[in-house]
Parts: sequence; C-alpha cells; structure tokens
Amino acid sequence: MTLKDMLGRTGVISREEALKALDLHLTIAPLASEELSISLSLGRIVAEKITSPEDLPEFDRSTMDGFAVRSADTFGAAESRPALVTIVGDIAMGTMPDRVLSVGEAMKIATGGALPKGADAVVMLEQTQAVDAGQIEVVKPVAPLENVVQTGDDIKRGEVILNRGHRMRPQDMGALAGVGITRVRVFEKPKAAIINTGNEVVPADFAPAPGQVRDINSYNLEGLISQAGCIPVKKGIIPDEYGRLREALDAALRDCDLVLMTGGSSVGTMDLTARVINDLGRPGVLVHGVSIKPGKPIIMGVLNTLAKQVPVFGLPGHPAAVSICFEVFVKPVLERMTGEIPHPALAGVSPYRSVKAKLARSISSSPGREDHVRVTLEKMDDGLLARPVFGASGLISTLVNAAGTVVVPVNKIGIEVGEEVDVRLF
Amino acid sequence: MTLKDMLGRTGVISREEALKALDLHLTIAPLASEELSISLSLGRIVAEKITSPEDLPEFDRSTMDGFAVRSADTFGAAESRPALVTIVGDIAMGTMPDRVLSVGEAMKIATGGALPKGADAVVMLEQTQAVDAGQIEVVKPVAPLENVVQTGDDIKRGEVILNRGHRMRPQDMGALAGVGITRVRVFEKPKAAIINTGNEVVPADFAPAPGQVRDINSYNLEGLISQAGCIPVKKGIIPDEYGRLREALDAALRDCDLVLMTGGSSVGTMDLTARVINDLGRPGVLVHGVSIKPGKPIIMGVLNTLAKQVPVFGLPGHPAAVSICFEVFVKPVLERMTGEIPHPALAGVSPYRSVKAKLARSISSSPGREDHVRVTLEKMDDGLLARPVFGASGLISTLVNAAGTVVVPVNKIGIEVGEEVDVRLF
Repeated sequence: MTLKDMLGRTGVISREEALKALDLHLTIAPLASEELSISLSLGRIVAEKITSPEDLPEFDRSTMDGFAVRSADTFGAAESRPALVTIVGDIAMGTMPDRVLSVGEAMKIATGGALPKGADAVVMLEQTQAVDAGQIEVVKPVAPLENVVQTGDDIKRGEVILNRGHRMRPQDMGALAGVGITRVRVFEKPKAAIINTGNEVVPADFAPAPGQVRDINSYNLEGLISQAGCIPVKKGIIPDEYGRLREALDAALRDCDLVLMTGGSSVGTMDLTARVINDLGRPGVLVHGVSIKPGKPIIMGVLNTLAKQVPVFGLPGHPAAVSICFEVFVKPVLERMTGEIPHPALAGVSPYRSVKAKLARSISSSPGREDHVRVTLEKMDDGLLARPVFGASGLISTLVNAAGTVVVPVNKIGIEVGEEVDVRLF
Repeated sequence: MTLKDMLGRTGVISREEALKALDLHLTIAPLASEELSISLSLGRIVAEKITSPEDLPEFDRSTMDGFAVRSADTFGAAESRPALVTIVGDIAMGTMPDRVLSVGEAMKIATGGALPKGADAVVMLEQTQAVDAGQIEVVKPVAPLENVVQTGDDIKRGEVILNRGHRMRPQDMGALAGVGITRVRVFEKPKAAIINTGNEVVPADFAPAPGQVRDINSYNLEGLISQAGCIPVKKGIIPDEYGRLREALDAALRDCDLVLMTGGSSVGTMDLTARVINDLGRPGVLVHGVSIKPGKPIIMGVLNTLAKQVPVFGLPGHPAAVSICFEVFVKPVLERMTGEIPHPALAGVSPYRSVKAKLARSISSSPGREDHVRVTLEKMDDGLLARPVFGASGLISTLVNAAGTVVVPVNKIGIEVGEEVDVRLF
C-alpha cells in the first residue's frame, strides 16, 4: 500500500490549493441576527447599518470652563486693552440658559454647559480677569465658535454611526448610548459542532479502562472555537462505527453551521470519516490530505443541506494537528461566518499576534511540505530566542509548553539556527 | 487663576511619575478564587499550581498505523533481506492486547493503540509487505521505542502542568481534560465600579431635556473594563453634590476592587471628585493632573479600606480622555489585579496590537506633554497611512472613526508628515 493510497483518492495537495478548493464550493450564508443590550455587545458583529436618530449634541456646548460671550465683543481685546463684559448669569449644568445674551454680556459656563442664545463662543477662564462681582475683562479675543461644540458636531441626525459587519468596540457602545440607541442587532454567533470519534476515547471525567484514553480534543476545540468568537457545541464521543458516526454528523448538520470531526489519526478512522461525509450529501469531501505537518491527513468537505451549506472538517486526532489545522483551515472559515467585515485599512494586517525571535537550533523540513513547529520563547539580552519543542504531535504537553509556532514555508527545507523567525503566539 | 491652580495642589506631573506614585502606594491584594468547569475557563487566570494526578498516557501507545513488534526482530532488515514476522493478532482500539508478544511475532496496531507486552516498537505499514494472511515482511529495521509513546511521556504523575497566574488557553483545557481534571480553580475577576457624575447626564434610555446629555462614558468604560478581563459594576449617574458623591464612592469601595469616577471635565467637578476621595480615607489623592493629552486633569488615588487597598481614578469626562486614561493608567492596574503572571519570555513583548504606518500629515505637540492622537488608517500600495482625526476630545465620534492612536512622546514637539509611526490599534 502506497502513501498515496493511504491518504485516499484525492491525494495530497498544498495548503493554498486546499483553501481554494474549499472556497470554490462554499458560499457562506448570512447568519440570523439577534437584538441585545449594547452593554452585552462587546466584540459582537453589527448586523445592520446603524444611523443616528438625532443630533449629538442636541444643543451648542462649551468645551471649556469660562464665559459664554458674543465673540464680536472680544475682537481686538489684549492684555493692554481688555474687553469689559457684564456677567448676567451662571449657567447650571443640565439646564438651558433662561435668557438671550445681548451685546456686552457674558454668562459663566462650565465644560459641557449649554450656550445661551446670542452667544457664539466661550472665553477660557484663564483669559479673563475679574473686575468685580458683575464684570470681567477679557484679555484675548475669541473667534466665532471657539471652545464650542455645535449641535450635531459629534454625530448628525441620519449619519451612519456603524456599518454592517463592524465588530463592536467599547467606544462604539458609548456612541450608540450617546444618541439613545441602547439595543443593537448583531449576527448570531456561528455554531461549530465537535464530534469526537474513537473507540478508545472516554469523557474527561471518566476513569479510563486499560487501553482507553480521556477526551482531550473536544476541550481544546471548545477553547479554540470560543476564542474565534463562535459557539462550540459538543456532540459527544462517538464510536468508530459507520452508522453511529453518520447519525452524529446528520444531527450536527441540522443545528450547527460548521462541523468538526476529530478522533484517531489512523487510516481507518480517517477513511470512515471521509465515507460518512460523502454519503451525507454533495459535494462531499473536497480535500483529503494536505502537505502540512502536523495535520497531513486532514479532510475538508462541504455538504449542502436544505437550509445552508455546511463545511465539515475531519481533523487528525493528534492534539497538535488539531490546533494547527484549526488555525490554518477552520478559523478562516469561522471568521468569514461571523459576518465581520474587517476595516478595509486593516485588510493587509495579520490578525495574529506575533513576535520576532532568533531560532535556538536548526529546524529541518521536507521540500514541498509546510511545517508548523511549536516553540518556547526565552528572553535574552538582545531579544527573544525561539526553541523548538521536541515531542510527537500526539503530545498535548508540547502545546502547553509552547508559546507559539514558527512556520517553515513549503518552498524551504528548513531554517538555520540563529535565523530571525516570526513566532505566531497562541 | 493660573493653570496650575486650576489643576489642584499636587500640580501636573509626567505619565511615568504618575504611574510611579500610584505604584508606591498600592499593594495589590490577592483576589479570591473560584472553581469552575474547564469548559468555562478560557482566558481565566489559574489560582494555584496544578500538578498531574496520573501519567498521560497510562500505557504505551503507537503513534502510527502498523505492526507492534520486538524491535530486535527487525535489526538488519532491508528490502533485499526482509525480516519475516508472524501476525498473531489485531489490537482493537480502546483495549489492552490479551497476549504477550514472543520472538518473531507481531500484532496489527492503529495509531493510538496499546502496545502488547513484549513489544517495544511499531513498524509503519508502509515498511512492510504482506506475505500471506498470517505473515509480513519488514523491509526496514525499527529502533527500540520507535513510533511509540511510553507511559507518562506526555505528562508524568506529579508533574506541574500549569503554574499559578497562568492564563488558560485552549490547549491547557485539553491537557487538564487529558489527566482527568475537569474543574479548575481560577482567580475571581476584579470588579471595577463606574460612577458617572454630572447634573447634565441622563441614562442612555432617557430622553434628555434641553441642556441634558445622555451617558456615554459608562458604556465606553463598561466595554473597556470587560475587554481587560474584569467585571464592570455600574453605580449609576450621581449628581455633582458632595454628599451624594461621597455616598456613592463609599458604597463602591465596599463591593469593588477599583473605582472609576467620570463625568464633567470642569474644574468644579474634578475638585469635587478630589475632595470626596480625600475625605474617604488615606492616602487619598496621589496625582491630580498629568502632562498628557487628552486626559490632563486626571486624578489618581488610593484608599485603604478595612479589607483592602482600592485604587480610585477620577477621569476627565471627555470620551477620548476616558479611553486614553483607561489605556494608559487604569488598564495596567486592572491587569495586575487579575493575578496573571505573564510568561517570562513575553515580559518584554507589548501586550498591544500595533501596526507601522506613515503619517499622512504632521502632528504638533507641546514640549513636556505626551500626546495620544487618534488616527484612521488607509491601505496604500506601499503600506498603511495614518491620518490624524480632527475634532475635540469631547467627541465620541472621533474614537469611533479612529482605528487606533499614535503617541507623540513627551520629549518630542511633534511628528513630521511621512514619518513612520506605531499605531496602537483599539
């Protein structure tokens, strides 16, 4: 039996080809939306364009502590030739001044106070001198609108505040509150099913019999899915039987937007996964094997259901393969599903946090294969040192000990000790 | 009245001095902890060292599809001189093999299967040729332990899996599950109170009367606090009255770990805030005014209560000042309060996401002042362009329109158009 046979009929392709194959067959349907309090909206994706129902502010406000004046009254004022104005009142916060300012008059105003009719500027406290209780001297002229925010200067009635696809940030919550929008319609989070297969796998809170192991992948995936802003839906541990697996996938297709099947990495398990996917609809398995390490036996497919298209992934069961395949193949699909439209200026910016480091020892790779190597980081006097973590991809501890990964691209056969690398942080 | 008088008795100091003053008077008490399911632990901070109660795996496992053998039986094997072994069984997943392997014997095994006693290596399927139903030829020797994970190779009984202060990642959830730990003790999230002051401020879902404005800052702060991994506790909108404000701060000190007071930016409001803080305990106000823009009138204090020390901040009410002051002064304190001990290798790595961009127009600043300028980003052929956002710091829209901020350090009087800058993304 050749390696090609083992990896199934579609053969091993590159990461780019795999992503392209998925892209070609996957139309992501718009998600349903839900309305919630802006207080709960942080990080959620706005489902419809939000325009302002009113002006912000709704009246002309002072941006300084000082005196509301008619600016013309201060023109030509100087230390040597101050302009004298009469104080005709003190504007209480939260109230509209009860009179119109006439020529030569001023009213005391605090930051945020409402300007009286007739006033068109505010003189800062520091640029005045008290003459007596009723009069001040202005020692510097103010221009019209100086130290004033006019009605609608912040947000105008009818103006678009947030676009569809925008991810809510703290200031967006503040802006909506400012114009009286306290509930916001956001996309529902995509639901990703986790089906763990394997006759040897028992739930984490079970005592494994000899030969059995506890479920690790469901928990790792649960975390990865949550981190990607989606809802993990655990579908339990399913034995490696065609009927049971088919039943589980069928159920997951009904209530989830994406399905992850993971378990053993054996040829038998992967073939069974592929067969079940193919038997449940079209187009079925699109990719079976990618020249990536870890993760080579990955399966990627799409199933058209009555209501939607559901991407289905068969992830090889080694914990490191699960994590890398999720980052490389699953996360980009989930991100598109969230409905987020990243800011155009940030389109070229990597969504990942990464740091530069020097490689502590050489990594060798095979030509034609993209390697994702787990590394620890050590702080040195002249920067960071990235040290590859030894150990099979089946060991969860290699992921726990690592700070991130270094990628050896498909066209390189390794990276030399001392070379600068980008470490993508977990 | 001079500017110095306006800013209160302690005068204006630099950002570093302000942070140092706070640091000097603030001992952060260890938070209480709570136990929760590992499924809910993503991003939480581990409150106590976690050691493994058992070996992972608990038996020797195969990492390949192939045949469990005694490695000595394959020594010297080659294509031209294969080693003949007899298949004495097929190891079902999740079971312990029922017999001991003798010299010249092999058993079929899948990835993850349990090795039989007597076997010490696995020959990959690809390095065998079937002779008949009962025998195979091995064409390449395997070394002892080749393609095998031994008992405890992943995690050993008694080994430390996670340290106190570690922030839970998806793989950590998986590792704990793997050794049967399904609940984890984490630090409680610090609670940060938000007291919004201002006679002109009404809740966001109220219709403001003329001269009134809706609460923006509570929502912005609610988002910022959540983003920092803490729990926002809204204490409502309090009028600018000494008694009411004192009452509100006193209540917040009882049930929160940190207090944020925000509202007007007027001298009167800031002075009232300072007075209330000073009257409620020692050491009281430590900083009143920092040479930063926006945010200059900021107040920072510490109050010793019976149970703990509570940092109290008076944030100037302009939305941009609230956001910048939170990032620069409040967030570092909240982060220390979470109990997280960042990985030592990452100690020098900025926790912020930032991108390089060219400045679209010059920014001028004052010597001795640190300016935080909001910028938009545009994608150009040769990288990103950062364009300063016009508008007073009182406008929430300037924060909504911006992608991040550029800092003009205290020792510079500006940054020239075309210079490369770091844009810290929101």
